[in-house]
Amino acid sequence: MTEVRTEIRQGTYADSVVLMQLQSELARLEGVLDAGVVMGTPANLELLKSSDLLSEAAETAGTDDLIIVVLAESEDLAIQALSNVDSFLVRGAATQTDDYRPKSLRTAKEMLPESNWALISTPGKWAGEIAREALDLGLNVFLYSDNVSLDDEVSLKTRSTSSGQLVLGPDCGTTLIGGVGFGFANRVRRGPIGVVAASGTGIQAITSRIHQLGSGISQAIGTGGRDLYARVGARTARQALDLLARDPHTEVVVLASKPPEPAVAARLLSSALRIDKSIVVQFSGFSPPASRVCNLLFARSLSEAADLAVDLADGQTSTTEDLRRPYRGGLLRGLFAGGTLALEAVQGLAPFLYPLFSNLASDLAEPLTGQTALEGHSILDLGGDEYTVGRLHPMMDQQLRIQLIEKASLETDLGVILMDVVLGSGSHPDPAAELAPVIGKARNSSGAEFLVIVIGTDEDPQGLAATCARLEEAGATVLSSVTDAVGLVASMLSTPEELTGDMPGDSEGHPVGLDTLGTPTAINVGLESFYDELVEQEVSAVQVDWRPPAGGDEQIISVLKRMRS
Amino acid sequence: MTEVRTEIRQGTYADSVVLMQLQSELARLEGVLDAGVVMGTPANLELLKSSDLLSEAAETAGTDDLIIVVLAESEDLAIQALSNVDSFLVRGAATQTDDYRPKSLRTAKEMLPESNWALISTPGKWAGEIAREALDLGLNVFLYSDNVSLDDEVSLKTRSTSSGQLVLGPDCGTTLIGGVGFGFANRVRRGPIGVVAASGTGIQAITSRIHQLGSGISQAIGTGGRDLYARVGARTARQALDLLARDPHTEVVVLASKPPEPAVAARLLSSALRIDKSIVVQFSGFSPPASRVCNLLFARSLSEAADLAVDLADGQTSTTEDLRRPYRGGLLRGLFAGGTLALEAVQGLAPFLYPLFSNLASDLAEPLTGQTALEGHSILDLGGDEYTVGRLHPMMDQQLRIQLIEKASLETDLGVILMDVVLGSGSHPDPAAELAPVIGKARNSSGAEFLVIVIGTDEDPQGLAATCARLEEAGATVLSSVTDAVGLVASMLSTPEELTGDMPGDSEGHPVGLDTLGTPTAINVGLESFYDELVEQEVSAVQVDWRPPAGGDEQIISVLKRMRS
Repeated sequence: MTEVRTEIRQGTYADSVVLMQLQSELARLEGVLDAGVVMGTPANLELLKSSDLLSEAAETAGTDDLIIVVLAESEDLAIQALSNVDSFLVRGAATQTDDYRPKSLRTAKEMLPESNWALISTPGKWAGEIAREALDLGLNVFLYSDNVSLDDEVSLKTRSTSSGQLVLGPDCGTTLIGGVGFGFANRVRRGPIGVVAASGTGIQAITSRIHQLGSGISQAIGTGGRDLYARVGARTARQALDLLARDPHTEVVVLASKPPEPAVAARLLSSALRIDKSIVVQFSGFSPPASRVCNLLFARSLSEAADLAVDLADGQTSTTEDLRRPYRGGLLRGLFAGGTLALEAVQGLAPFLYPLFSNLASDLAEPLTGQTALEGHSILDLGGDEYTVGRLHPMMDQQLRIQLIEKASLETDLGVILMDVVLGSGSHPDPAAELAPVIGKARNSSGAEFLVIVIGTDEDPQGLAATCARLEEAGATVLSSVTDAVGLVASMLSTPEELTGDMPGDSEGHPVGLDTLGTPTAINVGLESFYDELVEQEVSAVQVDWRPPAGGDEQIISVLKRMRS
Repeated sequence: MTEVRTEIRQGTYADSVVLMQLQSELARLEGVLDAGVVMGTPANLELLKSSDLLSEAAETAGTDDLIIVVLAESEDLAIQALSNVDSFLVRGAATQTDDYRPKSLRTAKEMLPESNWALISTPGKWAGEIAREALDLGLNVFLYSDNVSLDDEVSLKTRSTSSGQLVLGPDCGTTLIGGVGFGFANRVRRGPIGVVAASGTGIQAITSRIHQLGSGISQAIGTGGRDLYARVGARTARQALDLLARDPHTEVVVLASKPPEPAVAARLLSSALRIDKSIVVQFSGFSPPASRVCNLLFARSLSEAADLAVDLADGQTSTTEDLRRPYRGGLLRGLFAGGTLALEAVQGLAPFLYPLFSNLASDLAEPLTGQTALEGHSILDLGGDEYTVGRLHPMMDQQLRIQLIEKASLETDLGVILMDVVLGSGSHPDPAAELAPVIGKARNSSGAEFLVIVIGTDEDPQGLAATCARLEEAGATVLSSVTDAVGLVASMLSTPEELTGDMPGDSEGHPVGLDTLGTPTAINVGLESFYDELVEQEVSAVQVDWRPPAGGDEQIISVLKRMRS
């Protein structure tokens, strides 16, 4: 008859590595069939339950309680196994160092005054306070801990951006600073590619592949998974982009994230568009605006992001030939006859112009309040059902569009009018003849730019060359695809300064010094293994012998004391 | 003092081209400042209002009423202008043909017995009934009309798929059959590229660019904008894909759409995956699963879709080297340590496996009902916060994953276990040593496939080559990216037959004959300009002199009669 036996140690803290080792040791004992050593969170209780290790005693445990469970072949063997817990913990301690370890971050900083980084991997409930202390001490923070509140993240990053320090995280798994890996990091050669990512394994996948392809990494800066949430406003990602833009060793940048919120994506991409380096963007689950927009290349996967970055670094591809104009500002008025072209313009421009309004049903755009109302940047599909009941499609009848061009040209803040002209059978017999005078007049009176995407062939009845020539004579810029238009419009109208909303402005922060990217000197608080990795990478480092400030279980504290004696 | 004068003709139908001409004629009269000729829909009323042409009389008009408005310099001039309406309509008629025109589709079919297509562009409220009549007569239908109900679309397409006929539309703007353009179509050379698109201007942009790049089009089949709605189930798109798969003149296929519903996308892409031709997929606003999945290439814009298709047709790129396995069926269990890798797997596989469950918050996956519950295909991020409170990250502690592998191997319908192994500092010192025996055992007992994505470098402490070798010895297939895994898993597990749900099965329909793709012979009902285009393309065609079955205004009907006399 098997027996499940549970021991609960209330209010106990122990290094997770120690817990894992304890669990392995228990499971290896003769007569023990299974063992569990976990904190009493609901998720862990469910995991114990699914392994048939959940006793009534364990069910009462709280999230701060340490649960030790064994499943043994008999009651005696279970009791005997649990009696070994303390001695296992002592034995585990024997492998640890005998060096003196400071109890606080402050003492550690005194021991290693040149230290410029704190690595923090304590349980989340204490990590925010430790990070705050680290900032006080002038350190940059690599915050591995998860389960840190969003409020804490916003407060830490508001402070660090204004003081020009970095807070990477919380929940930042991976970073490479000055060739040194923090947290989970692959051994990669140094090289011309810098990475900014709100994604730990994203950085690992990208940097590993870049290395395996023969290139290398200048810096890889993790931001934490929530940095691109609207409330956080990509504060760390923008600091990191700015750093890599200035870093002379970084030639190409990879910007990766889980799907960002639209306002944040627009903010970040607008900043990226102003950087004079090629940037590969890989946002998972994000509909890319195009394959390329000015200096930005949009990858569809982590591996493609690495491949593109290496091609750029090797000069096998470049972004220099891309259409780009100086910033001029003002509003966009998109007036489309072709629905799919309008949708492609929304998809292409929503990542740069926020908010973008449209009558098209799209996740990417805000709905218009009236069918002809124009608020902020807008893109209208004039072929939508609401415009075509009882009237001809705008590809045949241009009257409505002409009316809207005239109306838009009276707006004081008009920046760009973007439209399509679709040639071919069935369409208007000579659209340019009707549009050119209207464009010429509206352009003169408003000073706005006119971009016209002409879709057609040299065999179409209207004449492709003649149509383009006539529109160009009227002062319009003629393009052959929506993608070409996206680059022009984004460069002319998209600016991070116009997208502030609730987000912090780029200008409010203090730039982070480039010396932050040198070889780090670090203080580690939390997982011993991260300290060991620093030492193995020949980094000057100090491990803080951190304990939760209060409430530790007396019994386990005495065990831990013995471990250190 | 200017004067707005309105005339309402109740329950009146007229060809939209005639209305547009009337409007231009009125606007050109001396003393007339502006004119409007529209049906009285709410949208049109709003447009009149924004042009200051909306009188009280017009406000009372219904959607079937024709509104004729003039803004003139004086009351007299306004009255005089309106008095010209009838004579303008007569003059417009003079340009029309004197040929005998049948009044019904049935008579037209008797006049042109070899006809195999009906082009329908009447107002939407009558178009469904006409399409039904066309199907009765054995015709395929190009249904340009919009404002046709979704119910009508489903009923028409249910019928046409079972009889092996095509219904392109409603709201189908563009199609090229046997080199002949229907509706809005560009003049393009014939060639090896076939197009299927739920998007009219999408077809125009793609086919025009392909022509301009020097290649050509075999067929371009429009499906109507709602064909990829769940209720319609991509019936027409699947018929069209099947046709192009069998068409010997089509070497490469482009499949384009506005964003499809997930279940429909999965259904369509699963069908596409079984076709032995390269297919370029361009779904606007859709997060692409990868750059390439087996024979499918995912474009990020219409222009890129055209570019890729031409490259494939010219042999400058190919899809042959892609990872692909025979279909084997069963469920997917994704057990990931890396969150971004898990997310990339969701993004990559959701378009092929529907529904896909995950603990990751993603638009692409259904939430799991319990943290460890496994329903249908599933992908778990074991590094999620809910698994890591008070325990080590799964990149260090593999116990939970081992437990879940053992559990999954007991399931009878297990098909593939997909997982990652992330090497590097901070991670488990030898993950393969722990996983290989578990994989070997689970593989033997379950017969399932094990795919392991290994992320790391040759300099990582665990040894990349040794890790891969050990996993391969245990029978796992080792891959270096999520993208590689997506192709293998999709080909092994994705099948349209498993995704039926509320959608019609592929097998329920009758295949459309390849002769449908020959030079068409057509009957046109609605816009005269479409008939003119057919004639200009030297197609045998008949124009039906269609009138609404009842309720036409007596006055305008007499005018229209005079027009035809």
